[in-house]
Amino acid sequence: MPDKRTAFFISDRTGITVEMLGHSLLTQFDGVEFKQVTIPFVDTVEKAAEVANHINQVGLAEGSCPLVFSTLVNPEISSIIAAANALFMDFFQVFTDPLENELGVKSSHTVGRSHSFSNSYSYQSRIEAVNYALNHDDGVSTRDLNQADVILVGVSRCGKTPTCLYMALLFGIRAANYPLVLEDFSSMTLPAQLKPLRQKLYGLTINPERLQHIRNERKPGSSYATLTNCQFEIKEAEALMRQEGIHYIDTTTKSIEEIATTILHQANLERHIY
Amino acid sequence: MPDKRTAFFISDRTGITVEMLGHSLLTQFDGVEFKQVTIPFVDTVEKAAEVANHINQVGLAEGSCPLVFSTLVNPEISSIIAAANALFMDFFQVFTDPLENELGVKSSHTVGRSHSFSNSYSYQSRIEAVNYALNHDDGVSTRDLNQADVILVGVSRCGKTPTCLYMALLFGIRAANYPLVLEDFSSMTLPAQLKPLRQKLYGLTINPERLQHIRNERKPGSSYATLTNCQFEIKEAEALMRQEGIHYIDTTTKSIEEIATTILHQANLERHIY
Repeated sequence: MPDKRTAFFISDRTGITVEMLGHSLLTQFDGVEFKQVTIPFVDTVEKAAEVANHINQVGLAEGSCPLVFSTLVNPEISSIIAAANALFMDFFQVFTDPLENELGVKSSHTVGRSHSFSNSYSYQSRIEAVNYALNHDDGVSTRDLNQADVILVGVSRCGKTPTCLYMALLFGIRAANYPLVLEDFSSMTLPAQLKPLRQKLYGLTINPERLQHIRNERKPGSSYATLTNCQFEIKEAEALMRQEGIHYIDTTTKSIEEIATTILHQANLERHIY
Repeated sequence: MPDKRTAFFISDRTGITVEMLGHSLLTQFDGVEFKQVTIPFVDTVEKAAEVANHINQVGLAEGSCPLVFSTLVNPEISSIIAAANALFMDFFQVFTDPLENELGVKSSHTVGRSHSFSNSYSYQSRIEAVNYALNHDDGVSTRDLNQADVILVGVSRCGKTPTCLYMALLFGIRAANYPLVLEDFSSMTLPAQLKPLRQKLYGLTINPERLQHIRNERKPGSSYATLTNCQFEIKEAEALMRQEGIHYIDTTTKSIEEIATTILHQANLERHIY
């Protein structure tokens, strides 16, 4: 039976950062089963005391020392959690001293600066990116297509929509997507609207078996979802993309994060940080 | 003139985690202007040497020591970056030893475990959450509305759509949204489809001036966008939500991350970690 541990991700705000980083670290340890618990908005000494108490209870009940990852800005709150019977690892604390020394500036210890509403302009441009992605999903609208930062192309259900939404929401990128369909394959040319925008195009492709599985979940038993059709569409789409000199990436075993960041990296697009 | 520093966020994979955490730390230091550069996919010693060289060049050109945040799993790659003339802070390195000691297990130092495509089931459920959010945006479809984890209600343009998409993409939550409109205000009752699902409802509200600004960007000069109309709709929507005992949150000065995580926290919904 594998060792079992509870890992707490504790934050005074959203908990998104500490959850990601703590989770990343834990994936490095094989053979241990982690129960991962995120506790956001621990922003008062009262809540901190309650959480510390809960950590102690869990440790007693499980007979093993809990792991506590945190990004707590306030030293008083942090010290309360640190006093619990757990392995305490605060991602801020450990680098605040070296940063203060190097910069010659004291940390402001202000809660809520990250993932916060910094200004309405930045917020608005992000919302506009999301609206842009929604309005330019699946070739729905070709208006303002030239305002896209990037236009994803590929066969239906290869991952275009979630990737565009992710790029818009996380990085403020205006991402459109446009399906490649039978008509394009028979003429072996790009849709007319896309031709003048070739430098913005980025392709997605996928393994035929996986595409069949995805399409079959959506339209069970349809000719659209047969393996033969999936194989045909993918072969044609890849041939068209190669012919047109469009970079493409295989999404079969990639996460949305990997697809999105690979495209931004290769297309040299600036990632806005929110 | 404020001190200027270049901060590098370096990762062997997507760079999302290190970018978030490094950015969070930097927001704590007032009076310093940071140029933030994310370099993802540093996964070979050759790339690492190139990046180290680039860091050195930047430091020389700017006459100040760059800051380097990293989440590098491979010790060889990490040591190359660490040898650059910079303040090197690796979020993994610092906690790997204490974790190895506590768990009695060696870190596998495997690149790409985080934000990776771990299994197709998990990926598929996340994509389904995104499709669900798209299909249940703005009350478009009421089919399967009872399968929602949460249903956001509020006036048009108060932030429902981006919040639902964020919850779906980042946490795999099935989030629907439904607008509250004039008809609901005149009858002072919830839309019929929502009545049996009251326990899943969560409200968003917003400051009238800000709503006016957002609506006016979208439909300039429309009666929909007048301050009087925005004030009226918000007053009525809040009255209706109070009457029906629906929790609501003011989105005016909140980021998408804050809105989404607050709702998940208060509604006690499990955040899946991808």
